[in-house]
Amino acid sequence: MKTIRVKAPATVANVAAGFDILGFALEQPGDVLEMSLRTDHKIVIKNEAMDVFPNMPLEPEKNTAGVAVMSFLENIGEQIGVTIIIKEKIRPGSGMGSSAASAAAAVFGLNYLLGNPLSTIDLVRFAMEGERVACGTAHADNVGPSLLGNVVLVRSYTPLDIIEIPAPKLSVSVIHPQIEVRTEDARNILRKEIQLKDAIVQWGNTAGLIAGLMKNDVNLIGRSLNDVIIEPIRSLLIPGFQDAKKAALDSGALGCSISGSGPSMFALSTDNVKAQKIVNSMERVFTDLGIDVLTYVSQINTHGPTLEEIQS
Amino acid sequence: MKTIRVKAPATVANVAAGFDILGFALEQPGDVLEMSLRTDHKIVIKNEAMDVFPNMPLEPEKNTAGVAVMSFLENIGEQIGVTIIIKEKIRPGSGMGSSAASAAAAVFGLNYLLGNPLSTIDLVRFAMEGERVACGTAHADNVGPSLLGNVVLVRSYTPLDIIEIPAPKLSVSVIHPQIEVRTEDARNILRKEIQLKDAIVQWGNTAGLIAGLMKNDVNLIGRSLNDVIIEPIRSLLIPGFQDAKKAALDSGALGCSISGSGPSMFALSTDNVKAQKIVNSMERVFTDLGIDVLTYVSQINTHGPTLEEIQS
Repeated sequence: MKTIRVKAPATVANVAAGFDILGFALEQPGDVLEMSLRTDHKIVIKNEAMDVFPNMPLEPEKNTAGVAVMSFLENIGEQIGVTIIIKEKIRPGSGMGSSAASAAAAVFGLNYLLGNPLSTIDLVRFAMEGERVACGTAHADNVGPSLLGNVVLVRSYTPLDIIEIPAPKLSVSVIHPQIEVRTEDARNILRKEIQLKDAIVQWGNTAGLIAGLMKNDVNLIGRSLNDVIIEPIRSLLIPGFQDAKKAALDSGALGCSISGSGPSMFALSTDNVKAQKIVNSMERVFTDLGIDVLTYVSQINTHGPTLEEIQS
Repeated sequence: MKTIRVKAPATVANVAAGFDILGFALEQPGDVLEMSLRTDHKIVIKNEAMDVFPNMPLEPEKNTAGVAVMSFLENIGEQIGVTIIIKEKIRPGSGMGSSAASAAAAVFGLNYLLGNPLSTIDLVRFAMEGERVACGTAHADNVGPSLLGNVVLVRSYTPLDIIEIPAPKLSVSVIHPQIEVRTEDARNILRKEIQLKDAIVQWGNTAGLIAGLMKNDVNLIGRSLNDVIIEPIRSLLIPGFQDAKKAALDSGALGCSISGSGPSMFALSTDNVKAQKIVNSMERVFTDLGIDVLTYVSQINTHGPTLEEIQS
């Protein structure tokens, strides 16, 4: 039986002014799955990333990868089973799209095993079902870029409208302070009503960010990485946020904000040397506060998942 | 003394989801000014468009073109006067950037007469001062595209950040129902607080519109021409709005919304034949309601003002 190893990347959702509509993919880290089809129609999930996610649910209907492949198989009417071995896992609760990466890898791998009946963009809606079981909402701003690479705009959910935005060559610093911010809390802390004048600033920056990405204008991208609505509130849940952001900007970051619902933070810059310097400066802020961190330096991923056959 | 004739175009601000940040320029109509320098340091304004704007203030400090040139001259420290003859005028109160076009034409013409000391984009802030005297706010979403052509994004006012977005070849239908909607009323009717969930839909569409314009994807432009915050409220001030919008869409418009603060409406389409059919269908709605209209069919202006020397 053919066995594949598929890796889907971590992602940074929201991207400052693009709350709930924008995300981009990283080269590192990612979720690595080994997958093979089964003739017994069962979805079998094994967790070999116990060190990172010891209490991962293995029942398919509770597991983000399991739900995603079930949704896929149901949609195309295929009566087949699949074995999924989770080999490597982005840390859950990091704000780097951990649940999205498993779901994205699972549907990308399954599509390959079935002879690619669907285009990658059509896989987004199945991976979204994995997100629904993991965090209660079938959002697409992580699974979209994890599957497609680059920057992804979720213009609309009703109907689903996924727009690929080509990403310029940019480096990303991500720092994951080892504190817990529950996605639910990060959402509940937000106000349901906002000022129209703030919203105008926000959609000016959203538009500026898209224009900057498409014009390959890194300064415009930097000026547009400015969130006046969500970041001022959510950053309260991240001790040291303002100092770490200042450190990033002082070290040459084009911009810096919260990754997804946090607690991870991301900063964009023009090369990996700068990105390393930036993440080092941010790390010092957190270590001074006695908070351990994980750090990642990576370019924006422009291709999506990678896949190899390890047994045919 | 050198005399020039300068024409600056009408503009459509807001462009559905781009409230207060987006505008584009039309080929027709426009404001036409004749201008020449004076040695006596006076700003002299003559109105030869009495049929359209009989009560235009002629005192420089109350006239949009006068204020714009005064701001320009003061900034560059030039001690010189200028004669401005307003030859043709877009109807005031139309929502098509009438005051902006005069201010844009005046600073564009003056810059030429002075030997082009400034780039066109640097003229925006002086034309904005003309807007301040005309409508109380120095907004840039009409003067920007009137001066630069194409689509203009006002990403930020503090500091001013004007981004040029290249426009695809699109046709515009504009219909001006002969009813009065005061800019002040159109602004006061808006709620100061809006729902976050609506704002997310709006900035998804703002981002989609920029992506569509830059990708030359007319279907994405059409899907993104959707304003869930301003249009539902301001359209109440335009009798027949919903029916006219439906008529435009049924006639093949990519999208349709209010031009600026109204009462004019605009629709985008792929060619002038469609644009004429669209405006005809909208006109029928208003004439059935006993409301006279002016209609315009034009391509998006991709060059800004035009200028010729008529006496050297």
